[in-house]
Amino acid sequence: MAPETLTLAEARDLAMSCLLANGCDERNAAPVADSMVAAERDHCHSHGLFRLPGYVRGLRAGVINGRARPRVSRVSPGVLRVAGDHAMAPVAHDVSFGTLADEARKQGIAYAGLQRVHHFSALWVEIEALAQEGLCALACTSYLPYVTPAGGREPLFGTNPFAFGWPRPDGVPMVFDMATAAMARGEIMIAGREGKQLPPGAGVDSAGKPSTNPADVLAGAQLPFGGYKGSALALMVELMAGPMIGETLSLETAEEHDGGEGWPPAGGEFVLAIDPTVMGGERWRQSAQRLFGTVGSMAEARLPGDRRHAARPRTLKDGFQIPRALAEQIREFAEP
Amino acid sequence: MAPETLTLAEARDLAMSCLLANGCDERNAAPVADSMVAAERDHCHSHGLFRLPGYVRGLRAGVINGRARPRVSRVSPGVLRVAGDHAMAPVAHDVSFGTLADEARKQGIAYAGLQRVHHFSALWVEIEALAQEGLCALACTSYLPYVTPAGGREPLFGTNPFAFGWPRPDGVPMVFDMATAAMARGEIMIAGREGKQLPPGAGVDSAGKPSTNPADVLAGAQLPFGGYKGSALALMVELMAGPMIGETLSLETAEEHDGGEGWPPAGGEFVLAIDPTVMGGERWRQSAQRLFGTVGSMAEARLPGDRRHAARPRTLKDGFQIPRALAEQIREFAEP
Repeated sequence: MAPETLTLAEARDLAMSCLLANGCDERNAAPVADSMVAAERDHCHSHGLFRLPGYVRGLRAGVINGRARPRVSRVSPGVLRVAGDHAMAPVAHDVSFGTLADEARKQGIAYAGLQRVHHFSALWVEIEALAQEGLCALACTSYLPYVTPAGGREPLFGTNPFAFGWPRPDGVPMVFDMATAAMARGEIMIAGREGKQLPPGAGVDSAGKPSTNPADVLAGAQLPFGGYKGSALALMVELMAGPMIGETLSLETAEEHDGGEGWPPAGGEFVLAIDPTVMGGERWRQSAQRLFGTVGSMAEARLPGDRRHAARPRTLKDGFQIPRALAEQIREFAEP
Repeated sequence: MAPETLTLAEARDLAMSCLLANGCDERNAAPVADSMVAAERDHCHSHGLFRLPGYVRGLRAGVINGRARPRVSRVSPGVLRVAGDHAMAPVAHDVSFGTLADEARKQGIAYAGLQRVHHFSALWVEIEALAQEGLCALACTSYLPYVTPAGGREPLFGTNPFAFGWPRPDGVPMVFDMATAAMARGEIMIAGREGKQLPPGAGVDSAGKPSTNPADVLAGAQLPFGGYKGSALALMVELMAGPMIGETLSLETAEEHDGGEGWPPAGGEFVLAIDPTVMGGERWRQSAQRLFGTVGSMAEARLPGDRRHAARPRTLKDGFQIPRALAEQIREFAEP
């Protein structure tokens, strides 16, 4: 079946109608639809409408709250507790990031600890929003135990993404967003569906032996990127998005969660914002621009996000392609 | 020549006498000696007395200030500016970490931006000190341009270490400290001296071709660990330890610095501290302990720092070995 082409406006309408038909109110549907559309705009299809069926399953199971009202409380100047009320994470960002940005500007530094949110969206979307406020921003979240520590074989860490953003005076912020796992779980599933092998280092089978077979790795464990260093970062994400903010480790999330891979479980997210003008005065802009310019001038090197930014104007103009089966599934889900 | 064996007390005396003989006062010499002795205690010889000749050369060149008085000012609740006065970094830690810990406990989160310090010591030593105060701590610093971005060939980033620590109720904090470069520069130099090849991925020659020859990599560029992900982290460290805190990028550091590899240049350091009890209540302890326990129970996996901690009691009892040539050089430097 040939894929369908959608404009971004059509994608947003589709996402909204699907979420509204499955128990969401406008305030919950809109930030989630916007996050998925931003992903499609930047050609990150794995965080686009592809995520909609998972949200719908969680909403239908009564686990995700489509009428959530996350509450922001100021624990101290610089610390915000966001009680997520089982919202989809973008809803919690929507109600808390204004306050987080204000606190960061007032205090120089602030963080938000998001509790009981269902995080299934791209971190770079939210980090870009904070960086567009002129802030240096950092976020991380854990998930379900899929990744074994370097040298191990039992899954313990989530794929634990870590994202960082930096504002640019002349345009889109520099944002990177990376799984601390060597590969995204979705990529492994897709490779399996397409009968492809994985690159070495993606994972181990259930006996702990390195494997390039997708099914064996999904039954065994994924590996962190970069050996013991990536493993240490995955451990850091477990601690910062879990116990540090009164939330669960991936292994505790799994104990609470009975949705398998059907929908995203409830968990925590750590979001940090720092105002670079507080210590960096005005000079930080030119200094950072010089760094970015130097990377940009290298023939073979690339700044994080460059590929996404390059896709943006094309998608805005021409829309994007979506597998027909996915579009049909979403339309079915959108029926009352 | 057979190596010499020193007790930790002898190592401290040697370091102190050498620093005092080269223009340091007691307040500057002591934290630096303690940092080097901590490294030797944990069998991290590359950050032990091995660093002393570099400090001495910088002191003799009049670039490092052996009588520095770093000043701590509270820019806002939660933000400390530490004007380093060209101190060796441990001196700036010594005068600021008490205030940083107090602010973190009061505010929940705080950071110190260290300016104009000469950082030549192990990050884990300082992070362990903060974590022992019951804080979650994170630090990073840039250096001189030795590392090219993933895909590039011109050096741009420092080896840019990044360290993270987490307090443990029952003993030594969990601390990791990793270069975002694939290998430490010192390790490449040592491989060169010993006529050994480097593992693949350590660097490129000046034409940008992957090389395992130490001399070619030192003349070309080191590579980040973990491909474009490690490269993104190295970029983040440049920004956070540089423009974000009113300090230099590695490439700007190089423009100011005329000491080659003779002594550590002046630059910045970012240190973050978060009190986990503020949002994590009391439960963070047991949850984190469970995570650490699970890693510890895996036959082949290891917690970061385990090897250091295992070395500790042995060194405390038996001392450690130091190459005779290094010991002699230090004694020479210690002569008035």
